[in-house]
Amino acid sequence: MPGNCGCNTCAGASPCELNRDVCQLKELVRSQGKQLGQLVRHMKMGCKKPPKESTLKGLSPCLKCLQPDVLYHLGMDTATMDFPKVFGDVRFVCMGGTAERMERFAYKIMKELSLKLNPATTLRNMAEPGHRYALYKVGPVLCVSHGMGCPSISILLHELIKMLHHAKCQDPVFIRIGTCGGIGIEPGTVVISSEALDGMLNPYYELIVQGKVVLYSSKLDQCLANELLSLAIPCEDEFCTIIGKTICTNDFYEGQTRLDGAFCDYTNQSKTAYLQSVQCQGVVNFDMESTAFAALTNRASIRSAIVSLCIVNRMEGDQILSPPECLSEWEKRPQVLVARYIRKEFLKRDDDSDTEVYDEVCPSACLEGDKAI
Amino acid sequence: MPGNCGCNTCAGASPCELNRDVCQLKELVRSQGKQLGQLVRHMKMGCKKPPKESTLKGLSPCLKCLQPDVLYHLGMDTATMDFPKVFGDVRFVCMGGTAERMERFAYKIMKELSLKLNPATTLRNMAEPGHRYALYKVGPVLCVSHGMGCPSISILLHELIKMLHHAKCQDPVFIRIGTCGGIGIEPGTVVISSEALDGMLNPYYELIVQGKVVLYSSKLDQCLANELLSLAIPCEDEFCTIIGKTICTNDFYEGQTRLDGAFCDYTNQSKTAYLQSVQCQGVVNFDMESTAFAALTNRASIRSAIVSLCIVNRMEGDQILSPPECLSEWEKRPQVLVARYIRKEFLKRDDDSDTEVYDEVCPSACLEGDKAI
Repeated sequence: MPGNCGCNTCAGASPCELNRDVCQLKELVRSQGKQLGQLVRHMKMGCKKPPKESTLKGLSPCLKCLQPDVLYHLGMDTATMDFPKVFGDVRFVCMGGTAERMERFAYKIMKELSLKLNPATTLRNMAEPGHRYALYKVGPVLCVSHGMGCPSISILLHELIKMLHHAKCQDPVFIRIGTCGGIGIEPGTVVISSEALDGMLNPYYELIVQGKVVLYSSKLDQCLANELLSLAIPCEDEFCTIIGKTICTNDFYEGQTRLDGAFCDYTNQSKTAYLQSVQCQGVVNFDMESTAFAALTNRASIRSAIVSLCIVNRMEGDQILSPPECLSEWEKRPQVLVARYIRKEFLKRDDDSDTEVYDEVCPSACLEGDKAI
Repeated sequence: MPGNCGCNTCAGASPCELNRDVCQLKELVRSQGKQLGQLVRHMKMGCKKPPKESTLKGLSPCLKCLQPDVLYHLGMDTATMDFPKVFGDVRFVCMGGTAERMERFAYKIMKELSLKLNPATTLRNMAEPGHRYALYKVGPVLCVSHGMGCPSISILLHELIKMLHHAKCQDPVFIRIGTCGGIGIEPGTVVISSEALDGMLNPYYELIVQGKVVLYSSKLDQCLANELLSLAIPCEDEFCTIIGKTICTNDFYEGQTRLDGAFCDYTNQSKTAYLQSVQCQGVVNFDMESTAFAALTNRASIRSAIVSLCIVNRMEGDQILSPPECLSEWEKRPQVLVARYIRKEFLKRDDDSDTEVYDEVCPSACLEGDKAI
């Protein structure tokens, strides 16, 4: 039966034939559209000169002589990996204590940035060969575990800073998403660090280099801290967000004046007096990484911030008695704030650069969807 | 056809019937033997009074008030686990940086002590709920990963010491099986630490407690170090074993005067001069955990030693360039020495106590074979 719309094109064609033609044409349009997109992207990439070097400052003059540079604890090296290609798009480095937490954050940020994984793939721990840290890459965001304490995070920071330098990254922002003991604040509160202090309450990170003590400033970026604080929505969020000074200790038990360590040579009274005295000086929490994190990012001119979850109010006790399901739920709170910041910055950047394409600079995962990595 | 040996027992029985009888009798003997063994063991256990408390000294007086005691970073507590039953038999605690290395060591020690796993089971990481460390138990041996740096190993030591105290353990020996940078020694060499020094070459572990600096001795057990050295068999071992002082640093790059970190404010000349000066003072290697390890075990009157594998000769370079398969093969060397020591002590103890049974005090794994855990 001939077509009945009256046009010349389909005169004499059956509905079945028309349907086939429509399908074929749609396929052709899709294919041509893809080719057009690729051409536009290639032209754009051609016009846009890739950066000659990273924006990181104050790095070792020896780095240029390291051929290859082996990032031993990350299990990577510049001889077998093309750093600019793999990590050149990194803009945000988020760090936290455990591998599991950072893997969960990687999937959260993927959702926040409307990135999707190809159903046949999964994110992989890119630092697995090093057996020390876990590192996941989601588009412009690295999610990395740092272990516990300044020495552990300092090894990671040295190697991440070298990685971003070799990758020629531009203006990366580092954020530590940690857990902490609060001083006079309720468990579940989110704490943004205004400053990182050592055990003597000085804003320094101490290193011993060739037998001599060297001090580095551990001040944090005030603008970034305030920007993160401004992203809290008190009437909507189910948690409080505060800002204050953080004491960084090299010991979880005696260093944080706990009574529940294997050793304890002080009294409950001296503990309370100490906590009250630091509280009077604006200290709101303890952690074990902030001075090294602040000092090493400072030295490389990297903007950085620390957003922590308070898991115990040290004015009321030492042991962490909140049930795991509660801690697991609270764990999302600092992540909410950091994800809001990254999303805002990501969309801002996205508007500027129009059709940025991530799939060409991130072979760590094959993602598809609203925006592909 | 009747039997032809001439005895009365088998007169008139066929070889087939005799075989059946032999099999049945053997089964009966085996079953009775098992029952006899169980009875003897129960009687022995009945006569032998379980220890009232651990042999650890100098612990916090607050420990008895912790009901329960939550070992947060190990993901265990005294309310939900019977520590004396699970860990009461622990005599050796072996620690190393990574989870993978300590799992491999657990299987090695299982073989050395002629312990076998039930084919339906596998060793499990008992500290998995804590997400920080890996802990495997093989009979009287704990194999634990400690992460990197003094703060990380100090948290673990506090919680392990509390664990062994609650478990009422008797005379445990702690051994760190590490990796290190050698000073003037070849990669692949095994180094036993005679003493642990801080970055200023003092034998102390420094803590800041309630804003005051406290120093603890980081001297190691000389007898144990020499005993371990005596177990090296120079004509048989494919590696050298040496003894010397270890410098413990809080930083892998600048703290160990490397030129390959992200930052470096000194010259190759000052690096060489520094390494030569510490070599002249008897220092043979760098690590990042020895002062905390020595000080905390000292404080609890625990005998302890450090046996490390040298992975780079710092007089010749900074980067760890040995291929992974080589490092993986070398990794076994300090383990060989430590396994010899544990085997010797285990057999000595075994001779003393005759028929010690481990399956009643270790629910962490179901093992069978020459000796069951």
